[in-house]
Formats: sequence, structure tokens, C-alpha cells
Amino acid sequence: MYVGALKAPQFKAEIVIDGTDKVAIPGLINCHTHLSMTLFRGKAEDEPLSTWLEQTIWPLESKLTPDDIYQGALLGCLESIKAGTTTFADMYFHEAQVAKAVDRSGLRAVLAQGIIEADDCKRGERMLAEGIEFAEAFNGYGGGRVTTRLGPHALYTCSPKLLVQTQEAAANLGIGTHIHVAESKQKSDWVKERYGCTEIELLKRIDLLGPDTLAAHCIHLTKLDMQIMARHRVKVSYNPTANMKIGSGIPRVKELLSAGVSVGIGTDGPASNNNLDMLEEMRFAALLQKTKYMDPTVLSAQQTLKMATIEGARALGLERVIGSLQVGKKADVVLIDFSSPHLKPSHDPYANIVYSANGADVDTVIVDGNLLMQERHVKTLDANEVMQNGQRVASNLTSR
Amino acid sequence: MYVGALKAPQFKAEIVIDGTDKVAIPGLINCHTHLSMTLFRGKAEDEPLSTWLEQTIWPLESKLTPDDIYQGALLGCLESIKAGTTTFADMYFHEAQVAKAVDRSGLRAVLAQGIIEADDCKRGERMLAEGIEFAEAFNGYGGGRVTTRLGPHALYTCSPKLLVQTQEAAANLGIGTHIHVAESKQKSDWVKERYGCTEIELLKRIDLLGPDTLAAHCIHLTKLDMQIMARHRVKVSYNPTANMKIGSGIPRVKELLSAGVSVGIGTDGPASNNNLDMLEEMRFAALLQKTKYMDPTVLSAQQTLKMATIEGARALGLERVIGSLQVGKKADVVLIDFSSPHLKPSHDPYANIVYSANGADVDTVIVDGNLLMQERHVKTLDANEVMQNGQRVASNLTSR
Repeated sequence: MYVGALKAPQFKAEIVIDGTDKVAIPGLINCHTHLSMTLFRGKAEDEPLSTWLEQTIWPLESKLTPDDIYQGALLGCLESIKAGTTTFADMYFHEAQVAKAVDRSGLRAVLAQGIIEADDCKRGERMLAEGIEFAEAFNGYGGGRVTTRLGPHALYTCSPKLLVQTQEAAANLGIGTHIHVAESKQKSDWVKERYGCTEIELLKRIDLLGPDTLAAHCIHLTKLDMQIMARHRVKVSYNPTANMKIGSGIPRVKELLSAGVSVGIGTDGPASNNNLDMLEEMRFAALLQKTKYMDPTVLSAQQTLKMATIEGARALGLERVIGSLQVGKKADVVLIDFSSPHLKPSHDPYANIVYSANGADVDTVIVDGNLLMQERHVKTLDANEVMQNGQRVASNLTSR
Repeated sequence: MYVGALKAPQFKAEIVIDGTDKVAIPGLINCHTHLSMTLFRGKAEDEPLSTWLEQTIWPLESKLTPDDIYQGALLGCLESIKAGTTTFADMYFHEAQVAKAVDRSGLRAVLAQGIIEADDCKRGERMLAEGIEFAEAFNGYGGGRVTTRLGPHALYTCSPKLLVQTQEAAANLGIGTHIHVAESKQKSDWVKERYGCTEIELLKRIDLLGPDTLAAHCIHLTKLDMQIMARHRVKVSYNPTANMKIGSGIPRVKELLSAGVSVGIGTDGPASNNNLDMLEEMRFAALLQKTKYMDPTVLSAQQTLKMATIEGARALGLERVIGSLQVGKKADVVLIDFSSPHLKPSHDPYANIVYSANGADVDTVIVDGNLLMQERHVKTLDANEVMQNGQRVASNLTSR
């Protein structure tokens, strides 16, 4: 694939795609998800967070087999391709299964095996060892489309001691980390009570804040926290739909950006969203900030599209590889079909993409120069088979 | 169309639609829009409300011809059908053109010609006269699918004197009113300063509060306002996306419902949304309330679907005619196709519809027993012609 002036190329294209009434954008980058949670979509709705997590999600997760995870991840890959996502950052269990689904689907991903200690240091050490093993084995997998991180779940599920070990291991491997930060007021208050400081201050103290730290959510922050994050060049995944659905509060993204923090956008898992549609997520991202500050000028359409592309790439440390249509970058490209009534007229393509479009308007998806979808037909996966398998394992899970 | 047990009907169906992997719901009801503003979709984005309104929208509106309004309304009807809306409540200029578009499209609508006095009582009287003329001429139009109301724009654009006359005229005609209430804090403050009371108190004083009053937005309310509204059985259109996009604040819908007020859902005009997708609007409706109260249990999926169907019907005074699939009601039915990856698995159809689906999942639309769309093919309108005309008049408008 070549990007540039019409007359310049010295080669003949293998495939020619007619772009009439279509708009090309860099592939969308989903900075925070738990892809296999597609299996739990629509379970335990409208419940308080503790009930949702402790009475539904955790018991179901304890029953997950590697094959369940694989089928759930394939369903999530299929959904992601259909909605124009080309790269996602994932944290879950049996992550090797997610890597295999990514390989088969043709997508790009940054994967971390989740590490949950839960006051059991033996378990913590075992999960860290498994996380390291996964990260080593799968970094560069799938023709280089898979990179890996370590995934300590959160400050309320991992001890400072384990987090220090995790950070040392990540540094040794030369990879980053992916962690939930300040999502729940209750958990942030618990950290404050237990450790006498904010979550960000604790992360700083144990040296887990750096340019390769991807911090998901970051809702309950102080002004000082934001300054610390900017100084350490921490990256944030802003997940507006999940924050709204769970009633966690509104991240102060306008202020994070003003402080100089890089912010990408994520859908979070499909059990708390309930889809993986980054076009819709951009709309929630922009509108929730306008709501927070009661100011329609906050987060413009163009700025939001950047957050879902080049800023997302930066959040994953991949800004030299993907995130924009530029000579020398990987060919991760999405064509949006503007021939539907809700995208007419097209006075402003940025506004139409961010405020009017949804995943179903994605026509073509290219990753690494390969066609994953054309005219909404996914080429790398058998859509019916993937959906049937997903439905089957989900039904088995909830009935056994 | 017959609703009931499989073996009961004593007739042979003319058309049989295979409902495999589809879910039938009552047609969605959009309680507040300005349909022809499709033409301004994507103009003047991310601007402060005053700039948006005074420097872009009003100058464009002053140039609108009746044919512009007709083409914009047709585009909005096409978009509405494609997203599963079967009834909408509209307020705009040259409303007869909207009525004609509704008739041609096969949709159902409650239409009001907008009345704006703007400190010019001659203009106010003229617009009221035109509004009455429209309401009389078009009530029952389109085979009874069009009903009419009077549409005084707002308390900051119409004087109490004109509003009294408007209410008297509505009572004489036996029809309702449709008015913007407490959308902007600034305008509510202005009303308070000028009249010494809240917008609701002023409406009560001039006797404009009743069961046939449809009040759009209702953001800046006191507890007493809510009690007054409940006592007078005022109906509310909750328009979450527009409220978020313009940064107007969050309506306290949970409290309105607790007070006993009927609340439907609206998209508002496509210049401040920017689409007419009621499936997406339901998602914003539920999630914005969970955000407001930081409580995931507020507005369940089922409750939200009711707000977009039977409660919307009640808000328009049509609860005996539409809003549910019931013997004796009009056959306004929508089939949602559940065969896409983002709707798998289907543990909970309510959750999938409200939290995962979007307009593109609508397969079939039936209004008054007539098929308007089947397998996403709109039968009553030529989609390409409507989109081309919409694009053409929109381009002319912004360039002349």
C-alpha cells in the first residue's frame, strides 16, 4: 500500500478498491478491553457493581475453560473487525487463547495476561510467573502483530510487593504494563485508607509509573495525581461507556489533556459496555466531556478521532508503527461508507464520523496491508461459525 | 396484522415474514425533533450554544424554502425508517412540507408549526395564526397518521400574552402543545429575572400546563417544579444526546419518574445530535441517568425500552393507539435482526437492544400494517433520490 500523490507510485496495485463516497481513516485503536467477556454480554444488567462482579462475573469467570476464552475472543475479533477496530489492548485469563484468535483474525493487539493476587501471595507469584511466560512466548507473535505486556489487575487486587516484582520483570523484558487505576471511588478510598495516599501516589512510590504504563479509567484523581502522571508520561485509556454504565463517575479528560497526559479511548469489556464499537465510543467520549464541563467546545470531533487513532497508538507505545496514514507506517486502514441517510449531507466528515456514524458504516478493514473485510464481508473468519460457537459456549457457561 | 397465540387466527396472512433470529418490538417513538435540520448535520460543530444558534443555525434557517424543508424532512423520514422509528413529534417551519414527507414515507407523526415571537408581537400573532391554520388543515392527514399540535417555541421567544392565546387556541381545537422548557440554564435564569419565577411556575400561571403539554428537555427544574408537573400531568421528552452535545446539563429523569411524571425519549434535531437513531438514544438515555446518580441500577434496559415505546406514546397522547404490540392497537412494529456479532450471545434481549444494538440492526419496519422497510430495503421512498436531493439542497443552502 502506498500513501501519497495520485501520480507518484512506481508500482501496479494488486487490489484496487473503489473509494467513491467512502472516507479512509487510520484503523481504530481500542485501548482497553477484555475481549472474551463477549460471552457475558447481557448477563447481570443494571446491578450494583459489587453484585455484578461478585455474584455474576467472578463465578462465571471461575468456570471459563481455555476454549471458552478462545471462542469468546474470536467473537470479539469478529465484532471488532466489523466495527473498524484494527488494534486492541486486552487483559484477561488464558491470554494465549486471545493471541491465537488475534492471529487467526488478522487483527493487531497488545495482550497482557491478568494478574490477580487477592491476598494470596502464592497465587500472586504463580500468576506473575504465568504472565511473564505468556509475555515472553507471544511477543512478536502473529507476524509481529501481537505485542505483549504484563497485566497486574489493580491496586486493590495486587500487593505493592507483587507490583514491584511485576515492574522489575516488565523492565527486564523491555515491555510495558496495563493496569486498572482509580476506576471506583470505593476502591480509591480503600487504597487511601490502607496506604495513606492516592492510587497514583502509591504507583509512583513503587515505581510503576512510566511511559510504558497504560492506566485504564483514571477517574478519581487529584490535580497532583495528574501532574505526577504527566511528569512520568503515563498513558491513559478513557472508557466512557463503561464508566457511565457502571456509574463510576466521569474522568476529567479535559484536565488530563491540559496537564499534558496522553489519552486513548477504550470500550472496556462487552459485559460493561455492551459492545466493541469504537465509532460509538468516540461519540460517548466527546459528549461525556462536554457534559462534565457543560461546554460544547470541549473535545472536538477532530480531537476525538485523533484520540481513537494516533493518540491511541501513542498510549500503546505504537505511535511510530500505526495510528495515522503515513509513509513508513503499517497499512492499517478503515473505509467508512458515507452513502447512508444518517451521513447525509457531509458538510464535515469529522463530525459525521464522530457524531453520526456507527460500526455498521464500516465498509472495508485493512490490517498490515491485508484485507480483513471488504463490503462488510469478513474474509479471515467464518462469521456464522464464530457466532454459533460463541452462543454455544456462552449458553453452556451460564447453564453449567 | 394479528397478535396472539399461534393457532388462533381465522384468516390467512397476505404477507409472511420469517422472524428467525429477529426480535419484534413496538415501533420506536421519537418524542422531540426538528426533522428538516438533517440539512445542517455537521455544520457548526463544537461551538458554544450562542455561536451555534445565532451565527450558524438562524442565518441558515432564514434562507430555508418550503422545498428545502420538504427535502430535509424526506431525508429525516428515510433515516428514521432505517433506524426503526415509526412515530416522531416534530416542531419546525413550513410544517405542511413535513406533513407531506410523512404522508409519502408512510410514517406516523405529531406535527407542530413552530411559533417564535422574538419581541415582535405582530410576528407572534402571525405565526400563531399560521400554526393554527396548519393544525386545523393537517390534523388527521395521511390516513390519520398525522396529528397536530401548536408549537410555541419557548418562554424566552414567546410572551406570556401570546402563550395564553396559544393555549386558548389549542383548547378550542382540542389539540395539545409542544414547547421547549428549561433547556438552557442561562435562559431559565433570564425567565427567573424577568418574571420572578421558574419556567414551570410561569407556565402554570398562564395555564399552559396540562396532560396535552409536551415539554422538551426540562433540565433546570426545582423539586417544586417536578411536583407541579406531576400534578398537571405534563409530559416530558428527555433528549440525552443533544443535552450532552450542547453541554446543557443532565435532566433529573429518575426524580421526574419518582414524582410521577411521564417521560418519553427524543433525539432532538440532527444538527445537535447528530442522528435520528432511537436505539442509540435509548443507550444514551439509560447511561446518562446512571452517570448522574452514579448508580448502575437507575433506568434498567426494560424501563428504557418502555420509555421509547409505550411511555413515548403516552407522552404524545397516543397510548391507546400505539406503543405496544396489543390487540386493538395500530400495527406499528419493528423487527430487530439479532444475527450480528455484537448481539451475540443473547442472554437478555432487552439488554442487547438497549445497550448493544444500533439503527443498522433494524431489519423490518411496519406502520399502520404497511411494510415501510423489509430486509433494510425501504419501500416507500427511493433512498438514493432522497439522499441526493438532501445533499443538493444542503449544499445550495450553505453556499448561497
